[in-house]
Formats: sequence, structure tokens, C-alpha cells
Amino acid sequence: MATHGKVTPIMQTGHPPVFMGAHALAHLEQRLAALPATSTCFILGDETTMAQCLPELLAHVPALQAAHNIQVRSGEQSKDIEVCRALWMHLAEQHADRQAVLVNLGGGVITDLGGFVAATYKRGIRFIHVPTTLMGMVDAAIGGKAAIDLGGVKNLVGAFADPDATYLHTPFLRTLGKRELLNGVAEMVKHGLVRDANHWNEVRRAPLHNLEALAPLIERSAAIKSEVVAEDPREQGPRKLLNFGHTIGHALEAFAMESTQRSLLHGEAVAIGMVCATWLSWRTGLLDRDRMNAVEEHLMGLYPSFSFQATDEHRILELMRNDKKNSSGEYRFTLLTGIGSAEVDVPITAAQVTEALEHYRLLLPDAHLRLHSQA
Amino acid sequence: MATHGKVTPIMQTGHPPVFMGAHALAHLEQRLAALPATSTCFILGDETTMAQCLPELLAHVPALQAAHNIQVRSGEQSKDIEVCRALWMHLAEQHADRQAVLVNLGGGVITDLGGFVAATYKRGIRFIHVPTTLMGMVDAAIGGKAAIDLGGVKNLVGAFADPDATYLHTPFLRTLGKRELLNGVAEMVKHGLVRDANHWNEVRRAPLHNLEALAPLIERSAAIKSEVVAEDPREQGPRKLLNFGHTIGHALEAFAMESTQRSLLHGEAVAIGMVCATWLSWRTGLLDRDRMNAVEEHLMGLYPSFSFQATDEHRILELMRNDKKNSSGEYRFTLLTGIGSAEVDVPITAAQVTEALEHYRLLLPDAHLRLHSQA
Repeated sequence: MATHGKVTPIMQTGHPPVFMGAHALAHLEQRLAALPATSTCFILGDETTMAQCLPELLAHVPALQAAHNIQVRSGEQSKDIEVCRALWMHLAEQHADRQAVLVNLGGGVITDLGGFVAATYKRGIRFIHVPTTLMGMVDAAIGGKAAIDLGGVKNLVGAFADPDATYLHTPFLRTLGKRELLNGVAEMVKHGLVRDANHWNEVRRAPLHNLEALAPLIERSAAIKSEVVAEDPREQGPRKLLNFGHTIGHALEAFAMESTQRSLLHGEAVAIGMVCATWLSWRTGLLDRDRMNAVEEHLMGLYPSFSFQATDEHRILELMRNDKKNSSGEYRFTLLTGIGSAEVDVPITAAQVTEALEHYRLLLPDAHLRLHSQA
Repeated sequence: MATHGKVTPIMQTGHPPVFMGAHALAHLEQRLAALPATSTCFILGDETTMAQCLPELLAHVPALQAAHNIQVRSGEQSKDIEVCRALWMHLAEQHADRQAVLVNLGGGVITDLGGFVAATYKRGIRFIHVPTTLMGMVDAAIGGKAAIDLGGVKNLVGAFADPDATYLHTPFLRTLGKRELLNGVAEMVKHGLVRDANHWNEVRRAPLHNLEALAPLIERSAAIKSEVVAEDPREQGPRKLLNFGHTIGHALEAFAMESTQRSLLHGEAVAIGMVCATWLSWRTGLLDRDRMNAVEEHLMGLYPSFSFQATDEHRILELMRNDKKNSSGEYRFTLLTGIGSAEVDVPITAAQVTEALEHYRLLLPDAHLRLHSQA
């Protein structure tokens, strides 16, 4: 399956580069073949990606057949300091030196974990991201964020560290279920809302079951992320655009993790966060009511309901205090000023956040029933 | 004791800047006073520096009187992943956000540990180094290396992360014992040997008991380190100059840690490493015999003997394989081409390393006795 000889055309965007299109993996093969013979390659994956994606990766990238494979458990619990310790020790035992290259094959957990381990092993070795989920392709594997969770706080420990490159191979998405796909779609919706009205419209109407139709939208989303990051690698300003939906979203994700009901995927939490942030955009006079309604309607139709009680809102606010984007307990939101444009660092009070959460609860289909039964 | 008003002159070198001279801490006071009110300050120190240096720091820098103090145990064992975990959690519990500033008050252990924790907490907060040992002032606190040990390997996990600035306050050295002072002198000797013949001559003749006479030499040494680092922050080329004595030195340090005899301080190990590397410089034809003898004589007179057996040499070579500076098991040394000049990446075989270690053993005062008793 490997493509030999010169590979053209290769679609490339951003710095560090994101390679996409049908020949992306053939380009990875060329790049690895050009490495010095002394560079040892390691592939990091989880149970799922090692079973479902590794054979296809090796078929397209024969240079990786000699790589050492490292497998961790699937799921967020692998973004853990003990897993890092095991990976650092494993690399040392395999005599990985500073010429070693780590290829991260997986979703956001693998690219976050692998990026952090590579960025800190011997003060930094090279790494390459090959995302296998939609969330990975349009968000997690682009932008040089690498982090693990600690003490229940997501991404508490991490670094800004750029991969050598990210390679998008959309056929990996064939094996993805609908919930996983929607998980990534949330970030695509976000990219449209904060930056590109046309993209929002295309994503809104896209047939999610048709990978061929989706592929160019995925690549456009990856390009938006890559552009914004290149403008602001250290998240000092413009990159905060990408926080849209994430301030409340992160807190809901952490809240769901400690509560007894089913956990929220990141994109599901961000979708609720975007509903709340869109309402706050209207509430603060930045966005008109029609546009708010259009965003709300689309997101509420696409994502499952997440129920919580009025009494939970205090805890959700508390979890927001730990969010790394907030300075000294102030809440600062990225809010929409239209479809395709947003403003960062809008000050929002705790009372307004509570109102936004209440608003979301009232949108849920069983809102009346639920409020009644509590009475 | 605080100096108010405009502070001049301030001696500054390099990027990130190293501030030195009598007014260095007054300048730190000015810088901290200019921080936004939302920035929380933390001071990290160990048992020794919190008792012996913190009162003097607070007297010169009243802005730090409101800082949170964090104390870890003295010694290399604090460069540990469990200590990092406790520090990250502590910062999170104190609601440290990305505006927080960590002031690292101590020797190389504290600046390495604090630098790494700050560089990775919420993907990086600002930090400032205030070294309290000679080793810290002329080496560890300059250059953006931040790391911890893992599995017995020194600095296995870490990052390149620049402090906002480093502040040298030589009066802290008053409390230092002779062994600690000699520990730092080894790096000063190195700076002279690889870069500045005049500095080598001055350091060689310096009265170690006279802090006032030593201060300008300390500042010159810090400036050399700072210059070399600025030329090559990521250690791709010129910075390897500073590895002189360290390839064998690091292995000896690790070897001493696992053996039963007293451990070697970093500078003591580097001094032996410099004796070996100077001999290798002669052996490979880069340095003449007279200069080799002058360097050997000075170092052997200044530092205590460290005995090991011929049978230990295999283990020392093995430890060198883990050194991050070596590519795929090859040994590459920084060797002298004269007094004040050096060449990096000189290939050296395992057999030559063994010869160099043998040479050191033969220089020891009891070499004959020891060899005899083994026979």
C-alpha cells in the first residue's frame, strides 16, 4: 500500500506543519526514511489504535515496521503521572537517546500523553502525531499542547511543545462510532462559529455518515485550528478564540467525572459549554437573538441532554476556578459577536454563569417534568 | 535593607538576563513590585536555604514578604517525581493560576526542581532563580535547563525552560563550606578552560576564602555561561562546549551514588571528568603535554581523590550510555584544543574511556599501594 517515489501534491498548512490529503502517510514514509540511521522510532498507541489503526499505518509507512511499539490502556485515565513514569523508564531501558522519535497514534489522550512524555524525556525528543479520531484530527493533535491530568484536574501538568508534524489520514475514521464522531464535530462547529461563517454552514449541513463528504471539512477545520495557533503559539491572545465553549465545558467534564451518571465526552461538554456561552453572548449584548437561537437549536438537536441539579451549580463554578484560563478567580469568556467572529476575555460574573447553566437546563426536553418533580 | 528608588548601575548579561552586582536584589524588588496585583508569588526553598537565606532575601525584597513559602528537603533526592507531584498539587490547592510566579531560592537542586515544576504547571508559569550556592550562581541557575532524576538517571525528565531572570547575590555564599565552594569552582575552571584563558588563570590563583575577591570572578563565570547558552539555547552545537568534563563526570556521579563509599558532589565528579577529558585531549593530539600537565596538576591538587577499581570501569561505561549527550551508544566528547578553546563532538571509543579512567587512577597519591594490594 505504500506509495513510492515523489509524492505530489501534498497539502500542508501551518507551522508546525499539518499534512493532509490522500498522500499524507506517504509523505510521513518519506520523512522517516530521511532520518539518520541512528534514530530509533517508537510508536505509542492504546489497545484500540494498536489493534485497529497500526496495521494500516505500517502498510502505508513501512519505515515504521522496525519501530518499538508501546501500548497503554484506552481512556483518559492514561493521562496520568504514573503512566508517564512507566513510559520515561521504558524509553530509558530501550536506550532511547535524544535522536529518538516518538510517533503518537491515537486520539487526544495519546497525543496529549505522548507529546508530554516526548517533550520531557531527556529535556525533549522529537515527536509526530498521527491522530486516529476526529477530535484528534481537528483539535488535539494540532497546537503543541501536551498535558496530563493530576488530582482530578484536567491538563494540570503539561507543556507547550510542538510536534515535528501532524499527519491526517481520514480513513482511520471508518471505525469510529457516531458518539466519537460527534465528539469531534463539536470542535468543527466551534471553528466555524469563532472564525468562518461559511465553515459553520457547511459543517451544520454535512452528512456525518459520509466520510468522503466530510474529509474536506475536516481538513478545513484542521487548517483553522492550525492558523489560529500559528498566530499565537503560547495562548497570550488570539488563541483564546479557541476557548469558546471550553470554560464551562471543562468544568462540566470534570463535574461529570466525579458524579455517578455517565461521563461526558470532551466534545459533548464543549457543546453544552457553547450553548451557555452563546446565551452569554446574547445576554451581554454581543450577539442578536436570532443567531443565538440558530446556534442553540443546532447544538441541542445534535447532542444528548445532560441533566444536573440547581444544587450542582456551585460545584461547577468551583471547578471553573481551577481552569487555567482564569486569572485569580475572575471568569473571562470567549463570546460570539456574530457567526464567524468572537471576542476574547469578556468578564463574566459567577451569577451570570449560574444563569447560563439555568438557561441550558430549561432547554432540556424534560425541563418541566424535572422542575416539577423537584418541587 | 531594601534599596528604594531608581537602582543604578545594574549589571546584566545574556538572555534571559542574569542580574549581578551589589544592587541585584534591589532590582528584583522593583521587578516584583511592577507585577500585576493578581500575580501570586511562591518561594521554593529547602531546609537550609529557608533558614539561612530567606531572611536576607526578604530584607532586600520586601515585595516577597506576602509570598507563600514552600519547603522541600535538602539534597538531590528532592529532584523526584513524587516531590513534583506534591508541588503541583500544592500550587493547585493554593489556586495558583497562570499569572503566578515561582521564586526558586537555593542551589542546583532547587532551581532544577522549581524550574521543571514551574515549566509544567498549567503548561508553564513564570519563574525566577535566586541561586544561593556557587554552583547555582555560575552554572545551574543559568541556561534554562530544568529537570528531575528518575530511576537513578540524573535529569532523565525535564524541559528547556527559561526563567524570567536570574539574580546573583554573592553574600549568600558566606555560609557555604569549603567543599560546597570547591563544588562550584569546578565549573568556573571549566568556563576558563573552554572559553577564556585569562579567566582560567584568574580562577586558578583566586583566594577561595576571600568572597570579595571572588565576586567578580563569579560574575565573569556566570557571564561566560550566559553567553554560551544564548548562542545555542537548545544545545545543538556551541553549548556542548559546556559538556567538558561532564560525559565521564556524570557517570562517576551516578556510580558514586550506587556505591557504598561517600557520594561525589557534581563539581567533584566534573573535576575528575576534566582530568580524564584533558588526558583524552592530549591522547587524541588536540592538546600538548605541558598544558595537559598544568590542568591535571591544578585539579588533582584542589580536589580529593576518588578511588574505584578496574572492575568498576565497566559499570561506569554502562552509565555513560544513558547520558543524554550520546547518540546511539557512541561516545562524543568535548575536548580541549588549548587553554581557553575546545572542540565538541570528538568521537571517543570505549577503550579510550577506559584508558582515561586508568590514567586518573594512576594519578592518585596511593596508586602504587592500591595496585600492589590488589596484586
